[in-house]
Amino acid sequence: MIRGIPQEETRARVDRLVHTFPQDMRAAVLSDDQYIYYLCAFHFAPTERPIMLIVTREGERILFVPYLEEAHAQQMAHVDRIVSYPEYPGKEHPLKLFTKLLEELHLTQGMLGIDYDGYPHILGYQGPVLSELIASPLKRLHRELDRLIAVKSPLEIELIRESCRWGNLAHRLLQKYTRVGEIETEVSMRASQEATRIMVETLAPYHKSNSRWQEGASAGYRGQIGRNSSIPHAVGANLIFQPGDVLVTGAGSAVWGYLSELERTMIIGEASQQQKFYFDHMVALQDLACASMRAGVTAASVDTAVHDYFTAHKLEKCWRHHTGHSISMRYHEGPYLDTGDNTILEPGMVFTVEPGIYDPEVGGFRHSDTVLVTDSGVEFLTYYPRDLESLTLPL
Amino acid sequence: MIRGIPQEETRARVDRLVHTFPQDMRAAVLSDDQYIYYLCAFHFAPTERPIMLIVTREGERILFVPYLEEAHAQQMAHVDRIVSYPEYPGKEHPLKLFTKLLEELHLTQGMLGIDYDGYPHILGYQGPVLSELIASPLKRLHRELDRLIAVKSPLEIELIRESCRWGNLAHRLLQKYTRVGEIETEVSMRASQEATRIMVETLAPYHKSNSRWQEGASAGYRGQIGRNSSIPHAVGANLIFQPGDVLVTGAGSAVWGYLSELERTMIIGEASQQQKFYFDHMVALQDLACASMRAGVTAASVDTAVHDYFTAHKLEKCWRHHTGHSISMRYHEGPYLDTGDNTILEPGMVFTVEPGIYDPEVGGFRHSDTVLVTDSGVEFLTYYPRDLESLTLPL
Repeated sequence: MIRGIPQEETRARVDRLVHTFPQDMRAAVLSDDQYIYYLCAFHFAPTERPIMLIVTREGERILFVPYLEEAHAQQMAHVDRIVSYPEYPGKEHPLKLFTKLLEELHLTQGMLGIDYDGYPHILGYQGPVLSELIASPLKRLHRELDRLIAVKSPLEIELIRESCRWGNLAHRLLQKYTRVGEIETEVSMRASQEATRIMVETLAPYHKSNSRWQEGASAGYRGQIGRNSSIPHAVGANLIFQPGDVLVTGAGSAVWGYLSELERTMIIGEASQQQKFYFDHMVALQDLACASMRAGVTAASVDTAVHDYFTAHKLEKCWRHHTGHSISMRYHEGPYLDTGDNTILEPGMVFTVEPGIYDPEVGGFRHSDTVLVTDSGVEFLTYYPRDLESLTLPL
Repeated sequence: MIRGIPQEETRARVDRLVHTFPQDMRAAVLSDDQYIYYLCAFHFAPTERPIMLIVTREGERILFVPYLEEAHAQQMAHVDRIVSYPEYPGKEHPLKLFTKLLEELHLTQGMLGIDYDGYPHILGYQGPVLSELIASPLKRLHRELDRLIAVKSPLEIELIRESCRWGNLAHRLLQKYTRVGEIETEVSMRASQEATRIMVETLAPYHKSNSRWQEGASAGYRGQIGRNSSIPHAVGANLIFQPGDVLVTGAGSAVWGYLSELERTMIIGEASQQQKFYFDHMVALQDLACASMRAGVTAASVDTAVHDYFTAHKLEKCWRHHTGHSISMRYHEGPYLDTGDNTILEPGMVFTVEPGIYDPEVGGFRHSDTVLVTDSGVEFLTYYPRDLESLTLPL
């Protein structure tokens, strides 16, 4: 049973980050909640009250939080020191107090790594940029951080695997409860609630979701029902299921901050010839994409193989998006399986593979699986059936 | 029945925004999803694929979206024109294509208003900043936009009122299902699911949540149970309810993008002397804050009155956060009821009023109500009972 993110895990991540610092960089100053969770296991709801993590060149971690979050941070954060400020906006602006802290720590005499120049405009936050307050040269670290995050540790892979398990359960319940005449939202909530309850009870007491994106497990349709399924990023619309509908699902769960993605195309009643035609091509595309993946090839090459299939089968009009994205703490992460992304795949990277076919007159067709890159290919972490028969719902 | 955000509403917002443009500003270029929804009623899930709205000085709206979102935008957005790009990162970076569009529209010859310098780092997005790609002077518009958003139109007040109704129902169910021995997550999900189902059926077919923050109605505890209730922004922890627990709730719903906030302190079984002491002070503080509010006073003065009460009653150790925040499309917005915020209250502003008292040995005590500022005081939009007797749960 995974009991959370251990101290050694975040320690190793900090060491790897510090290793990327150029000679004259004194510290990294980060305000993104996902980077902060990655580096010190402190999960919180980001608001207009700045929370910043300093990681010094020596690997020391100092967390700057509003007074409101101090006790919470003391319970959870893997840090050497916590410094709090009274409130935002407060009588003295938090970013000015933060600058004083940097000065006290003698960190303003060299270059600083940052994610944002100051604190981003979250929920109405207003404030000065850091570059107005200190003279240090600032260097954006998004690229370095995202590169670290892209290659998963054994623990992270286990967490994603665990997430797949509960996404699978939620999806199974979704399929079971989806029937003609039912309302989308209700079916989704019922499946999600039941899966979450079972998940929480099964993992108790060693479970926290610790995710900004979801609590427990969930499965649903986001409005991708019938013809609306041809809108890849539709949003929930309380549709009622009808005979002949093509459905595109989405399921997953959050385990100590880690996510997975499982999507399936389902059809209510026997598929029409046209539906079957698109379904078969979609599965063939997913097979092709997976067969193109292994350590050493570029992300672009996988997407190019998919594009070539679209062209060869005269399906260009049905193309809407690239083949997939990385996933772990964010539900989309880089690198992307995209013709413009030349990242070389490495063992330990985790991607969704989800080429989709869309026809406004017929619907959308997309499976998404979460797969682990290995030296010789990919390992499927999701394990839901992919064939049409298993995904045909009774009338 | 409110059937969505009408064209006239977003048109009026655009006109008010353009009115704030300095003489030499050609257009505003916005990438924040909440600003975009406010100005053109297009609700979408923000991802690494940039979506940008251009609002010209003449009030024309041009929406730049990934191809993936084109059909969706055509259905929903109040805009004059939609321009799409193939994919992110794609063979040509979307921000470069966006720059070309600005040039084609002859908008790069004057100052541009922006929210972000380029597109923010959402879900692994990487890209150049706008100031590297174009020579136009850029001016941040956060302050102007947030000032517009702070004063609500009659329609917006109606939407928040409608949101309060369903938050009230969810809270009522939460209170009904919360009993000793039950698990937090399960009770929250049950209440939320049931309230959402009733809400959706009652409002059908004229309902969409259209919110980044929630779908339907919800009520829960976020782990603020027993001693954990003293952590103001705790996160869910699957606690089991026990006799004597102090509980701090949170409830709300999303109606065409608009939110409200309802929070209550409840106690399982008869309150102890200490619990009653804090509960009474908390209600007195909320009464005091509301009595201090009306058009013409500063936000700071309300928070100062609250601080003075803490001091006069020697409760300083129990203070954790300011008195409240604005609310509409984001669950926290500016201005804030905070000693450092000198905004003058205006009729049509909507605030949460929620001074809280926290003692790590006893728990947290906080009610939050959503109120509308009027010329003479405030009108409560939430309407749940605030007295101890109504909020005491049976053993």
